Amino acid sequence: MSKEIPAKERIAIIGVGQTAFGEQWDRSIRRISLTAATACLADAGVSGDDIDALYVSNTSTSSFIQQEHQAVMAADSGGLLPVASTEVEAACASGGVAVRHAFLAVKSGEHKVAMVIGCEKMSDISEPAIADTLMSAADREWEGQIGATFPALFALLARRHMHHYGTTEEQLAAPAVKAHANAVDNPYAQFRFKITTEQVLKGPVVADPLRMLHCAPISDGAAAAILVRGDLVEKFEGDPIWIDASTQASDTLALHDRPHITRFGAVTSAAKKAFEKCKMKPKDVEIAEVHDSFSISEIIAVEDLGFVEKGKGGFAIADGYFDKKGTLPVNVSGGLKAKGHPVGATGIAQVVEMVEQLRGTAGKRQVKGVKRGLTLNLGGTGSTAVLHILNRE
Amino acid sequence: MSKEIPAKERIAIIGVGQTAFGEQWDRSIRRISLTAATACLADAGVSGDDIDALYVSNTSTSSFIQQEHQAVMAADSGGLLPVASTEVEAACASGGVAVRHAFLAVKSGEHKVAMVIGCEKMSDISEPAIADTLMSAADREWEGQIGATFPALFALLARRHMHHYGTTEEQLAAPAVKAHANAVDNPYAQFRFKITTEQVLKGPVVADPLRMLHCAPISDGAAAAILVRGDLVEKFEGDPIWIDASTQASDTLALHDRPHITRFGAVTSAAKKAFEKCKMKPKDVEIAEVHDSFSISEIIAVEDLGFVEKGKGGFAIADGYFDKKGTLPVNVSGGLKAKGHPVGATGIAQVVEMVEQLRGTAGKRQVKGVKRGLTLNLGGTGSTAVLHILNRE
Repeated sequence: MSKEIPAKERIAIIGVGQTAFGEQWDRSIRRISLTAATACLADAGVSGDDIDALYVSNTSTSSFIQQEHQAVMAADSGGLLPVASTEVEAACASGGVAVRHAFLAVKSGEHKVAMVIGCEKMSDISEPAIADTLMSAADREWEGQIGATFPALFALLARRHMHHYGTTEEQLAAPAVKAHANAVDNPYAQFRFKITTEQVLKGPVVADPLRMLHCAPISDGAAAAILVRGDLVEKFEGDPIWIDASTQASDTLALHDRPHITRFGAVTSAAKKAFEKCKMKPKDVEIAEVHDSFSISEIIAVEDLGFVEKGKGGFAIADGYFDKKGTLPVNVSGGLKAKGHPVGATGIAQVVEMVEQLRGTAGKRQVKGVKRGLTLNLGGTGSTAVLHILNRE
Repeated sequence: MSKEIPAKERIAIIGVGQTAFGEQWDRSIRRISLTAATACLADAGVSGDDIDALYVSNTSTSSFIQQEHQAVMAADSGGLLPVASTEVEAACASGGVAVRHAFLAVKSGEHKVAMVIGCEKMSDISEPAIADTLMSAADREWEGQIGATFPALFALLARRHMHHYGTTEEQLAAPAVKAHANAVDNPYAQFRFKITTEQVLKGPVVADPLRMLHCAPISDGAAAAILVRGDLVEKFEGDPIWIDASTQASDTLALHDRPHITRFGAVTSAAKKAFEKCKMKPKDVEIAEVHDSFSISEIIAVEDLGFVEKGKGGFAIADGYFDKKGTLPVNVSGGLKAKGHPVGATGIAQVVEMVEQLRGTAGKRQVKGVKRGLTLNLGGTGSTAVLHILNRE
């Protein structure tokens, strides 16, 4: 890609930053966002005055502490005024969608340097209130009001996948076991310890067949990135990673409207566009961060991204294909499961991880020599998919 | 502008649609959105299959009926899947921000035909709950939690403007009187009757000096528009109106952080950029729709847009300068005050009105011969400003 397209027509990420994910009882959401933003500005070598567009992703603060207009709040507390500040919302895909809109803003020629900040502070809120608020991202009228929660909806996907493709309980546990093994080396991760398949299978049931360790946790945290027009890269210190494709697609809000609940139509659609744009195939991806809010999410996603044959996701994960030392490392960061899932920050944190991997600065979790990576962020039960292909060159 | 820039680099609005604003007890928010969207598709001569990006603006449905992910909901119920669907939130400026992001999406070259849908359904909700939810757009921690509401915050602006510039109670009433007089001719308007200055001044006090008729109402409604890349205009039937500038800026979230509470810094900033881009001056604007959530909003906004000298807004409005037959007609639609203010739809409805005026299809409320118009949509206490300059040519 790099040699075919003039730098001015490409977009680069020149800075990233994030907080550790986990419980942050001692900090406000303003402070958490600011910590990630400050780290990101320093990494990019960019001053606040250079930022001319700001995107903020957050899903639940309007419910949790009755605060909307968070893009202005972040611009204001970050000293970035009078920057154009916009909050985007696409459920758990909000972070990826924010990155995509910074990309579009710069690509449009209307902005030169765009920043994204994603944040969520969930520990303060009771678990039933969180479960109910998150259901705002599914179909409230047709799913939420009859008592469905996200674990319940994803449990339907898991049970159907097991029935249709023969995915086993051990395979369903595999994404979580892999995530925890990877997170040990990630200083940002919420859970830096290994778990066994047996522990997953003996955990308390959340929504059969999903048990506690199949599910991503409740987390606090923020992540940030700065994007610039390609010809301005030289002006700043940050080591650039290039965006080769940024695509987004939607599927039905409610599960019952889909012909096959074990397929993420939005993923197939966004992936097709992205691979066409980059003139590449799924097998050309060298490393990926894939949305694993529940272990079944990762299983279905790696199939619909075309990494493995449909129905073989659980088998391939359990078989080590997506291990850090496997053919295609997926979720070396620990993923949503073990790194943590502060919803608004998640999609940006995937990009932060990928930038560090492609720069070769990922420390103990570095996958050697990777040049091209993919991030996939999902919202709802796969109702939104947003996908980025990043390139070292 | 038109002759200097190749069509391919310009963006046109080729279709608009909206519902009547007012109380719509008999329709769901899905249905209200769909009504505006369908009218818009028909006006543009565009099929749902042509839409490749969707922006939805809404501010309070996450609180009112616990439904987020509304961009996907609109794409799904509108038969637009797998379109890339994004909800943007910038308080009462959400509609204008949605239009701006459709503009950026097309200008980036990543999309060809983008649709925006804005909606709000407020009648179902109790007034105290609405007042509290809307305060999510101000600073909850520093303003909301000490009991401030939006009427109270704007009352501070009004009182200070009266003190500092000598604006009178009669002048403060003038935007509302003008809005109602204009709305008589607007079939979409919530209040199609005239009011007198005396009626405004005798109305019940909401937050001194603001009385009931100084304040925009609670409304249900939706509005939509379709934007395309300039060289594709010929492909569709819709009569195009061109976007010469689309700018956005931010100010502090809380009032107490501003050096002057009678100035909208975000308006000054967005207007400066827009006028520079169009190589025009405020006096070149022939018609405008200006955010009048409270009468003081319009008074301050017309000053900070540079339409009149600072401090003279109230005087000029009372003097007829901004009347439909005045020097620069402002809010010929009836504005937020009399047309109605279904929050998420408001900024898009301003654009709908401007497109109809510039096309010359505004019926009884048509201002003759106007070629270039401006829309200004505000969020919070002027914390977000988003501005469009539209051109017949």
